[in-house]
Amino acid sequence: VRLATILEASGPVVAVVRGERVLAADLPAPELRSIVGLAGAGPAGLDLVRAWADAQPAGAWRPLAEVVLGPAVAHPGAIYTIGLNYRAPGEAPGSGPDRPLVYGKAATSVGAPGGVLDWDRSVTDDVDAEVELGVVIGQAAFAVAPEDALRHVFGYTIVNDVSARDPHLDGDQWLLGKSLPGFCPVGPWVVTPDELDPADLRLGCTINGEAIQDGRTSDMRFGVAEIVAFLSRHLVLRPGDLIATGTPARLATPPGPGRRLRPGDTVTARIEGIGELTTSIG
Amino acid sequence: VRLATILEASGPVVAVVRGERVLAADLPAPELRSIVGLAGAGPAGLDLVRAWADAQPAGAWRPLAEVVLGPAVAHPGAIYTIGLNYRAPGEAPGSGPDRPLVYGKAATSVGAPGGVLDWDRSVTDDVDAEVELGVVIGQAAFAVAPEDALRHVFGYTIVNDVSARDPHLDGDQWLLGKSLPGFCPVGPWVVTPDELDPADLRLGCTINGEAIQDGRTSDMRFGVAEIVAFLSRHLVLRPGDLIATGTPARLATPPGPGRRLRPGDTVTARIEGIGELTTSIG
Repeated sequence: VRLATILEASGPVVAVVRGERVLAADLPAPELRSIVGLAGAGPAGLDLVRAWADAQPAGAWRPLAEVVLGPAVAHPGAIYTIGLNYRAPGEAPGSGPDRPLVYGKAATSVGAPGGVLDWDRSVTDDVDAEVELGVVIGQAAFAVAPEDALRHVFGYTIVNDVSARDPHLDGDQWLLGKSLPGFCPVGPWVVTPDELDPADLRLGCTINGEAIQDGRTSDMRFGVAEIVAFLSRHLVLRPGDLIATGTPARLATPPGPGRRLRPGDTVTARIEGIGELTTSIG
Repeated sequence: VRLATILEASGPVVAVVRGERVLAADLPAPELRSIVGLAGAGPAGLDLVRAWADAQPAGAWRPLAEVVLGPAVAHPGAIYTIGLNYRAPGEAPGSGPDRPLVYGKAATSVGAPGGVLDWDRSVTDDVDAEVELGVVIGQAAFAVAPEDALRHVFGYTIVNDVSARDPHLDGDQWLLGKSLPGFCPVGPWVVTPDELDPADLRLGCTINGEAIQDGRTSDMRFGVAEIVAFLSRHLVLRPGDLIATGTPARLATPPGPGRRLRPGDTVTARIEGIGELTTSIG
């Protein structure tokens, strides 16, 4: 099932997406009206949403173009990002990190698909975009083995891990350079694992139609199960926590000043089997 | 006012502490029964708690020894820690970082005052303790000036920023080494700013009665207002977010293996004007 979060007058609510149509999941149980709530409810929660959607009349479904999408995960409890997780073309075997490198990104940085990203340029004027496969945690995970880890995955989405590159915000201060409001566009929706195997998906990013990244998730050093298991050895993962699993190599490295995001740019992050996540730079 | 979080059969609830007595704040408004909720409610929320406490009969107050304290902030939205924030004795002027160094610590790592801290030693067996002044954010802050920042502080508490020192968990992976469950004892209560000026408080830490740290908050490189303002330039601070403002120099540096936390140790973190936060190592 594909689950978006749409913005209604009453606030964000989960919606089922089928093709070009969408149905707000106005379920009587408020805890099932958010991705975080659904993620914690386990398979029974998803079954309920599916059955409920099947029972609605065709006229209840609206065209996608008529709703406003919010961040696919409206209020994640935490966002973790994995650094240097894609093998570069031609790199020597064994040259990367020997375990996932984990950084935080403020949970308040989520942004909506199709949104406008604007920020105070006196904080940073050197910002770039990164397409990443986003993993949404389902039932809480602590100290799970890699072979059990995928049972704690609620679904997959696209994350644009917008990051400042100023020397004083990169490196040690990565958290700060990744956490401005809107620096984590996420969506357009969450696809549950029964519909998507994340092992070998094409993913890429364009700015104004020009490709800046074009890779495959099979080039990850650490796959989804290893990342979830590794993180869960060190901290408790909660329903709806979001993990951005790293970004593929850039087509032009080092990224020149022309790759910095500028007002008027349109950034599109794409992952096969999920869709497109577009952000306009304000 | 001093606000603890006590564990009742119904879950954690805010309690007013006066001397050696405590009163559960069983307010009719559920959003005022947690520190996060009260922190977001602004001055009116605190006024209501004070007035309500004043109106209760003396017999409603229980001895502190008869309640079970939970983490003073039961469910912070985020925990940020500041690295290298205390001047070392005799250090050359201008030798420290020129801006706060910010790291994340998982919000799920909070632990209770008087609690037992135990963890899987195969993850790390090289863990130490750090006393830190904890700042609890009140009303949400974004891009606030230093001169306005203290208006966004709900109160102060003690944080023991328990940290792994293994090379693969320190440095770049600091988040991982600080985030195991229980690695953030916080309490014993939150003291609101009308009762406490954080500018020059003695703070220290002992293991089994032996001092390992003994400093003053006046040795912070960046004070509370500067930290809150700086963080708020880069991310949205929400009610109940917790900032651990850094730890004073160790009395013996580098910390030898004898300072590693071992089963049976009793760690006590103290801050003048707040109290003591004790943790037993399991």
